[in-house]
Order: sequence, then C-alpha cells, then structure tokens
Amino acid sequence: MNKPVDQSEFRTPEVTSGALPSSSKVYTAPDADPTLRVPHRLVHLHPSANEPDVPVYDTSGPYTDPDITIDVEKGLARPRTAWVLERGGVEEYEGRDVKPEDNGGASGRFLAREFPVKNTPLRGLEGHPVTQYEFAKAGIITKEMIYIAERENLGRKAMVEGAEARVAAGESFGANIPAFVTPEFVRDEIAAGRAVVPANINHPELEPQIIGRNFLVKINANIGNSAVASSVEEEVDKMVWATRWGADNVMDLSTGRNIHNTREWIIRNSPVPIGTVPIYQALEKVNGVAEDLTWEVYRDTLIEQCEQGVDYFTIHAGVRLAYIHLTANRVTGIVSRGGSIMAKWCLSHHKESFLYTHFEDICDIMRAYDVTFSLGDGLRPGSVADANDRAQFAELETLGELTKIAWAKGCQVMIEGPGHVPMHKIKINMEKQLKECHEAPFYTLGPLTTDIAPGYDHITSGIGAAMIGWFGTSMLCYVTPKEHLGLPDRDDVKVGVITYKLAAHAADLAKGHPAAQIRDDALSRARFEFRWEDQFNLALDPETAKDFHDQTLPKDAHKVAHFCSMCGPKFCSMKITQDVRDYADGLTDNEKQALYPVEAQEGMDQMSEKFKDLGGQIYLNAKGEVREPID
Amino acid sequence: MNKPVDQSEFRTPEVTSGALPSSSKVYTAPDADPTLRVPHRLVHLHPSANEPDVPVYDTSGPYTDPDITIDVEKGLARPRTAWVLERGGVEEYEGRDVKPEDNGGASGRFLAREFPVKNTPLRGLEGHPVTQYEFAKAGIITKEMIYIAERENLGRKAMVEGAEARVAAGESFGANIPAFVTPEFVRDEIAAGRAVVPANINHPELEPQIIGRNFLVKINANIGNSAVASSVEEEVDKMVWATRWGADNVMDLSTGRNIHNTREWIIRNSPVPIGTVPIYQALEKVNGVAEDLTWEVYRDTLIEQCEQGVDYFTIHAGVRLAYIHLTANRVTGIVSRGGSIMAKWCLSHHKESFLYTHFEDICDIMRAYDVTFSLGDGLRPGSVADANDRAQFAELETLGELTKIAWAKGCQVMIEGPGHVPMHKIKINMEKQLKECHEAPFYTLGPLTTDIAPGYDHITSGIGAAMIGWFGTSMLCYVTPKEHLGLPDRDDVKVGVITYKLAAHAADLAKGHPAAQIRDDALSRARFEFRWEDQFNLALDPETAKDFHDQTLPKDAHKVAHFCSMCGPKFCSMKITQDVRDYADGLTDNEKQALYPVEAQEGMDQMSEKFKDLGGQIYLNAKGEVREPID
Repeated sequence: MNKPVDQSEFRTPEVTSGALPSSSKVYTAPDADPTLRVPHRLVHLHPSANEPDVPVYDTSGPYTDPDITIDVEKGLARPRTAWVLERGGVEEYEGRDVKPEDNGGASGRFLAREFPVKNTPLRGLEGHPVTQYEFAKAGIITKEMIYIAERENLGRKAMVEGAEARVAAGESFGANIPAFVTPEFVRDEIAAGRAVVPANINHPELEPQIIGRNFLVKINANIGNSAVASSVEEEVDKMVWATRWGADNVMDLSTGRNIHNTREWIIRNSPVPIGTVPIYQALEKVNGVAEDLTWEVYRDTLIEQCEQGVDYFTIHAGVRLAYIHLTANRVTGIVSRGGSIMAKWCLSHHKESFLYTHFEDICDIMRAYDVTFSLGDGLRPGSVADANDRAQFAELETLGELTKIAWAKGCQVMIEGPGHVPMHKIKINMEKQLKECHEAPFYTLGPLTTDIAPGYDHITSGIGAAMIGWFGTSMLCYVTPKEHLGLPDRDDVKVGVITYKLAAHAADLAKGHPAAQIRDDALSRARFEFRWEDQFNLALDPETAKDFHDQTLPKDAHKVAHFCSMCGPKFCSMKITQDVRDYADGLTDNEKQALYPVEAQEGMDQMSEKFKDLGGQIYLNAKGEVREPID
Repeated sequence: MNKPVDQSEFRTPEVTSGALPSSSKVYTAPDADPTLRVPHRLVHLHPSANEPDVPVYDTSGPYTDPDITIDVEKGLARPRTAWVLERGGVEEYEGRDVKPEDNGGASGRFLAREFPVKNTPLRGLEGHPVTQYEFAKAGIITKEMIYIAERENLGRKAMVEGAEARVAAGESFGANIPAFVTPEFVRDEIAAGRAVVPANINHPELEPQIIGRNFLVKINANIGNSAVASSVEEEVDKMVWATRWGADNVMDLSTGRNIHNTREWIIRNSPVPIGTVPIYQALEKVNGVAEDLTWEVYRDTLIEQCEQGVDYFTIHAGVRLAYIHLTANRVTGIVSRGGSIMAKWCLSHHKESFLYTHFEDICDIMRAYDVTFSLGDGLRPGSVADANDRAQFAELETLGELTKIAWAKGCQVMIEGPGHVPMHKIKINMEKQLKECHEAPFYTLGPLTTDIAPGYDHITSGIGAAMIGWFGTSMLCYVTPKEHLGLPDRDDVKVGVITYKLAAHAADLAKGHPAAQIRDDALSRARFEFRWEDQFNLALDPETAKDFHDQTLPKDAHKVAHFCSMCGPKFCSMKITQDVRDYADGLTDNEKQALYPVEAQEGMDQMSEKFKDLGGQIYLNAKGEVREPID
C-alpha cells in the first residue's frame, strides 16, 4: 500500500448496463416543450395484476436503455450543449491547459490515461444570465425547468385523483409540496433559492434534476479513490453502479494522484450531477501541506474543475478563524477533511480563511459556469457528544450570510449539514438551517443517531436521514457500511444507495408527496396477492429480494406459491385474509349491519352458515385448488 | 420441501460460547442483597486509553463466561427456583403428560429427541402472591427487582456525575427516567403496570430483566422453525446466537411438528425470557383447521407451555368479531398470523373469539405461573396504506380494556403494536397506546416506514423502531433482512439483532438515559485517538467492524495507524484536529481572547508563529514520528 497505482494496464472501464428486471425505459415529452425526452422507468406487472405498470423516478441514464450503445471511451451524448448555446450569453474559449500537478505529478506508468475526447469549454459572459438562478429571477423558464417538472411528475400529464388529499394527509413541517409540478413552480422555487439545479454548462451529458424541499428527496453517493486504494476503472464503474440503484448525485471525493483524469472519465460518462471538494485537489497541488495552500492555487483548481463540468463544489467557507478554537474541547474535534485542512491553514497563518475572504471571487467564477455552491459544514459534529454545539451553529450562521452573497452574485446555493446527531437534536438542525440560511436547500450527511455501531453506520445514519428528510432536508448524502472503517467497494456502494433511497422515500411518504405511496401500494398489493415476481420487481433492489426468497424456496413453482418459507403454507395470514375478504364481499348490507352489535347472535349464526357455504379451506395449492395440509 | 424433517440424526445443538473480543463477564452484588450475582460485560480498553473499562448491558448469559461449563444436554443452572420457593405460595405438582399432538403427531424418526432432563413444574396457589405484579402491589421487593435495579445501573453503585443532567437534556415525551435505578423504583414501576418482568416460575434459568419505558429499551428476536425449514439444533443455536449479540428476549414462533420438544430445548438453555404465540401450537393440534379450534384445546396448550416455562404469551384477544369486517377494504387485510386464525374462527362460527370470552380464565392460568401477557395486535397494518385505521385502533382500545382485567387478576401485561406505519403516523400510535392501555409497556414490531424495500426491511423498520422507542415503546421486536421473503438464518438473526440494538440505543440516547452515551463517547474517543482495536471492541458488532477495516488495511501495523483507507494518511481530519487541539492547549488566556474579534491581526501573527513552533507536520507515522508524505 501507499505505492502509486501502476496505470499502464489501463483498461476501458467496464460498466453495468441493461434494463432492471421487468422494467423498461420510457421517455415522455413535456407539453411545454415536446422536443424534450424525459426518462422514467416503467415497472411492468404480471398480467394477472390487472393494474397499470408503475412509473418510478429513473436516475440511471442511458445505461438502462437497450436502444443506446454505450461507449465509455466516447462518453455520453451531449444534448444540453444546444440548450445552453440557444440561450446565448456564453462563449467558447480555449480553456486552461492540463498541468502535471492536476494529476498530482503522476507520470509514466503511474499516470492514468487521458479521456480520449477533448471538448472546448463554455463560460458565461458578464451581463447575461447563465445560471438557472439568474434565469429564474429574470422570469425565464429554461428547458431544464420544463424537463424537471415532467420528471418530478413521473411523466403524468395532469393532476391525478387523490393527489391533493395525499399532500394534505402528510406532515410537511411548512414545506409546500404541490400535487402537480409545473415548470412555473420549478422556476419559482429556484428563484426563491429554495431549490437548485446543479448543471454546469460544461456537463451537457447530465439529465437535469432538482434539489429542494418541495420536490422528491434526493440522495447522493460518494465515490473516489484515495491514496491507498482504487483505480480510475473502479471509480467509473462505481458511478454508473450507484446511479443504476438510484443515486441522484455522485460526489467524486478522490484524493491522491490522477485526480484530474479520473474525474474526466467520470464526468463524461455521468448522467447525474457530479460534485467535488476542490480543496482536496488543491492540497495535492501543494504536496499535502495545508499551510502552503494559496488563493491562487485554489482559484486555478476551481477553474480547472469548472471547465471539466463539475456541477457543484463543496466549499468550506464558513470555517472562520474565530470558530476553530470552539472545537478544542470537543470529543472528536473537527472531522470534516475540508474543515480540518482550512482550520490548519487558518491557524498556521493566523489569518481568516481565504475561502471566506475571497468568497465573492469564488462566486464570480462559479456563476460563469453555473456551478452550484454546496456550502460545506467543516465544523460538523463527529460524535453525538459534539452535536449542536456552538462551533457547529456558528458556522451555520456564517453559511447563511454567504448564501445571500452568492445569491446576489447570481449563484445557486445549497447548505451541507451534520454529521452525528442524536434523534432529539435533529429537528433543531433543520429549523435553524431554514431560518439562518433563508430556506436554501439542506444537504445532510446522515445524521448518525449513535456512534456505537461501526459496520452498520448506513443504518445508524439512515434513521437520522429519514427523519431529517421528513423535516425538510432536500438531499441526503449516503453513508455506506464501511463508514469510519475503510473505502467502500461496489457492494457497499449499492447497500448505501438502497438504504438512502428507502430513507428518502420514507421521508417523501411522511411529507405527503403525491407520487410516493403509489409504489408502496402496488408492492403491497403484489405481496398480498402472492405475485412474488411483481413484489421483487417493484422493490428498490429486486435482485436481493429475489435472492433472499430463493434461498429457501428456489423453484419457479414457488414464485406462484401462496405462501413463503417464513410461515409455510398452513399459517399464511395473507391467504386467510383473502378468505375473509371473499366472505365480506359476499355479505349484504343487512348482514353487515348484523355484525354490530356483536350480541346479535341470530344474525351471526346465519352468517356462519354463509361462510361455510363459501367452502374455502385455508389451503389452496398454486392453482387455487383445495388441498390437504401437507406438512 | 414440505416433508417432515428426519430427526433420527439428532445431534446435541452446537452453540457459540466464549467471551466477546476484549471483554469479560463481571458480576456485581447489589447492596440490597449481596448474595445475588448480577452479570455485566466489561469492555477492556487499551492501556494507552488511560480511561476506565466500559460496562455494557449483557444479555448473553453463562455462554460468555469462560468459568462456566456449558452442557446443552443438561441445560443452564436453575438458581431462581430457590427464590421462588423461598417466597412460598407455590406448589410442586406432577404436571401434564406430554401428548403426541404436542409435537404435531410426529413419531419415529420424525420425532425430535426429548430434552434429557425432566423437571417438576411449580404453580402458584390461590390467595398468595405469585406474580411480580402481585408482589409489587403488595409492597414487596423481590430478588428479581433488586437484581434488575443493579442490572439497569450496569453495576454502578451510586449516582454518577452528570447523570441527572443527561436525563434532563434528553426528550423523553413524559417518561420518567431515573438518574439511578433503585429496587424501590423497579417495584413502583411494576406496581403501576408501567413495567413487566417476564419470568415464569418454571423458567428459573433466566436472568431477570425489566421491560418498561423508564428503563433501557429492550429488543426481541424471533426464531422458530416452520413446516418447510429448520431443525431443533438450528433453533437452539439461533437462540444462543441472538442473545450473544444482544437480544433481550427471544420468541419461539415455531409451527409445524416437534413444537413441544423444540421449545423445551430452547427454554432449558435460555438465559433470557422466552415468548410464544400459543395459538400456533393449538392450531397444529387441530391439524391446521382454524374452525376446529376450541377453548379446551387452547387451554390445554396454555397449561402445557406454562409448565414448560414460557415467560410471555402473545394472545390476540382483541380480535373481536365486530372488528374483522373493518379489514375488508384494506390493501393487505389481516397480516398477523394469530389475528387471521382468530378472524377465520370467529367468522366460521359467527361467535365472539374464545380468547375474548375466556379472557378471565386465561388470566387465572397465567397468574399461577407468572406468565406475562403480550396482548397481540392481530389487526395491525401490513402496509403503510392501512396504518392507523379503524380496525387497528378498535383492537387497541379493546386491549386497553383487557389490560385492566388482567391487572385485576394479578397478571403482568404488555401490549403489541404495529407493523407498517409511515413516519408521520408513528407518534400517534404511541400516544394512543399510552392513553388507551393505561401506560402498560408497548412492544412494537418495527414499524416499517415504507413497503418498497424487501430485503432491507430491517432498515425500513429500524427507522420506525428507533423513533417509536424514543417516543416511549419499551421493547422493539426485531425484523431481519429476510422479512417478507423467507425464514431468517443465523446471519440474518445477527443483522436483525444488531440493527435493533442500535435502534434501541439511539432511542435511549434521545430519551436521555443516563448510562447510554457513555459507550458512544468511549467509542468516539477511541476513534479520535486512532485506537482501532478499542473502536472495534466497543462496537455492537466487533467482528464486522474489524473485518471491514481489514478488507483494505489488513496488517497488524494498520491497527495503530493514524489513518484509515477512506482518506489515506494525508487527509485524515482526525489527525489534523489533534494538531489543532495541541495548538489550542498551548494558548494562554490572552491569546485565546485575541482570537475574538477575528480582525485582531496582530495577535494572530503571534499565534501563527507559536503554531509553527509546535512543529507538527500533518503526517506522523505509527510511532508518532514526523515523516514524509508517502503516496
């Protein structure tokens, strides 16, 4: 370990493609712009279900469209460039040359191969709107906004019955979830700063997506190599893999060498927004010596990444010199990497952080490419003991100040949040963030609700994530089972993504999102009716659901069995309930009345006869025939 | 499948024993009765930690005590028989003969071997207190109560500093958690019906334990064979395995044949309370035909299980005839096995359930052995669509009525709860249960907060479990990853137990339990100080934590490395924070003052020099020596 990875045997990254089980990619055209093709996944049910196929939000991009040929060496198609050019106010320009330090000085067989295709970058001109925020403020509905409305509605063209009732039945803590999303609503939310659309004009491969508390809760997956593990191929594969299972966003947190080239392969092949923490790469450029960081190195790194197409930057500009001291008596001090790097810089120089002093300059750069701010929580708590302390909240207040500056400069902003927080301290985080940061979208890591379960921190944090998502967080940064222990591999990435998808969905349900419960109900009906394959296919992870089922009942015949191995055929409550339902369906209104009060014994005796007439043994075989108990 | 399991090759169940990593079993003697030996697990930290070893609640019984020889053929020691006899009011008697139908008519090579040791059962006499509730109401503190107080305090002998502050800092929703548990407090809570001690006088092998919202939140693991899978050996092993990882209780939910013999092996070897659902066995005795169930068969089954030593019975006495009809329009009808069996019986006969009409008779039987009621939620929702509906709450109201009857008869009572409930509907369940059931302890399954993640329902339910535990639920019934899909194996049991331990612990933290955060803080300090082994050993699952770490950094040297593979050595924020702390420690008060306001540049420049004097490179090697960056 700690040896540079030999890159001379670089192979084209192998990625997973093809449709998910019993699913197909469908595209719908928004009424407001029929030229757009907005993707959804349609889960097909067994004909016996006699109910419509179920549309689900699809983050997987072209990889699950069998009609599109994937060539990782070329990258994905770049349709959004035309949208950007059509709007005007941008220029093509030569762009910055790649320098050796961009890849940590890697050379020869240690340098990862460059991405084969070179694109000329675009940047916005002064005096013209470039960012989605600027367009929204100017009252202009962009193609991205139209696309997003269609996407959030899962392709439905009008208000569906019951949608308003579902919203009303939820508890949304002041969120304003619409029963039907219109492009105008999207624009209004962006203009208010309550939602962001991370979409660098140099990342035209992405499928636009919105992050805000009045929309579906989104999740982020972190990938990235470190100095001691992983390769470019693995990271590209992880990105595609994470989006296959539902990651709305991916952060490339690579450190070590080959950061530039790794990122290029990722972005060119990514259908989802890519975020980074630019200070990581800047630190590599000064050989890892925090004190040697300068504004100039950092600025150059920002431009490098803006030109590549990074969609949002985590910037720890709220780690002010005066706050660092507040962490000294914590149980776990500063646990954010970016936060600790900046803390060390501030203390070494005894100066205010250059991220803070140059914040307006940073805004000017990011605006020109429409890179979204993700204002980092460098002083977040790293243990439940440190939750909600003065250091954490002092930084949050500063992030609120910076939000206003960024908006004034035309930038989109979201705010990162903790961390490790016991359950009873979660809600105040959300309330304080909404207040201090003027409703800019909150993007939280977990929070972990206890520190005692390393190896299960996807779960300790999934609890906190579901809760804070319900309270109003717009995006949940996943945590994998390897958190605190090691770099996640492919399997860990999947478990982290599925855990966070279910947490985000639980939040959507609790908020009353009109589209959320459709999938729960479809799956529950499949479960009740023993449509095993439909139950698997509607699951967030069909492969695992099927695999678990098949461990005890592997045969195809069991897929239509009216029982599972938990209870066996005799005790299946679902089957018994079906008998009860058949019986209830057969009652007249008078008979139903007779059930109340229970003392009406005469009516009961009649009904008892009727039930016997219906004849059902508890046990039917797979064909619905009455059969003998069989144990 | 569906063949009876050949039992002729019955082997003595192999169980896992031996201490957990870096842990030892310690026994403390309560001041109130120094003859008692109350077990705890002490996690030993590395000497460099320079802090005391950490006591944790220990459910694992003699299996983790290397001084005790385990012989599964003999069962555990039975010390509590002496306590019961000493109190008087009980008689030894011949007991019921085991009948062929007790084992589902299994014979020959299909009959599981009988447990080798026979014990004569005890039962309580009329007019004498037998149950912990009766003793508590009479103002008598039993040995069990003294034992429990010592156990809940984790062996500490007096109020520890800060305990009251921790309780005050939590949010307990009206619970009354003491900073220090006394035997008197235990008695008062039992007498009020707010806590139960499931401890059949015929299960003297168990280590007494309390379930109530003013104590540590407990968890339950379900085991048991079904008609299509598993054997006696597997189930005994699962019981020991579940308690090793922290199951406070185990329910044997066996169906099919050999129920009696399987249960005997489990109880005789169980250090924790064992619960059952007697209707399952009763149904086997009438060949699975729900309509053929009678009070007589059920009554005989209760006595059979009381004599064996089952500690609590799930009894679905709230499934009244008049409520069944309310489930007909549900998405998933009745999903409780017991509930659906009783529903079918009620409809067939058109009579009120015999569990309801014979409820006082049931009380009389259970009182005589001190078997605790777990009033079952036979009409719980099986999908989020059905949560909090009239059927569910009608049953809950009836359980409240029955609670009062059981108390009047001298019995201990807890109440079972749902099920599938979206987050925003969880709290009302807790509030309604407290109100309707007069603060009897709530014992919930999950609840699952979404239906769309089969294969991950330990997590969908862990979210709900943590929340409802925080709101006031006393015991959480675990859910494994196999829920809805198949019978859990050993690995599933462990994942389910660990998930629920972390959920229960998160609830304890949020409620402000004075002992809870000690473990979090100890683990967080270990994490911060790179004591990897201490971090593993303090984890709920040390084996998995260590295994995950070792997947990328397997060498022993890495166990003392000041970094992990997530970030590599250069970016470790914990290491940087240590530098910050060293620096802050070196500041004088004047220098600290100078940090505010941040404009005090002169003071800053001085401090900058001071930081440089401290000399720290970011990177130290394992010996604390400065070294070159090494990527």
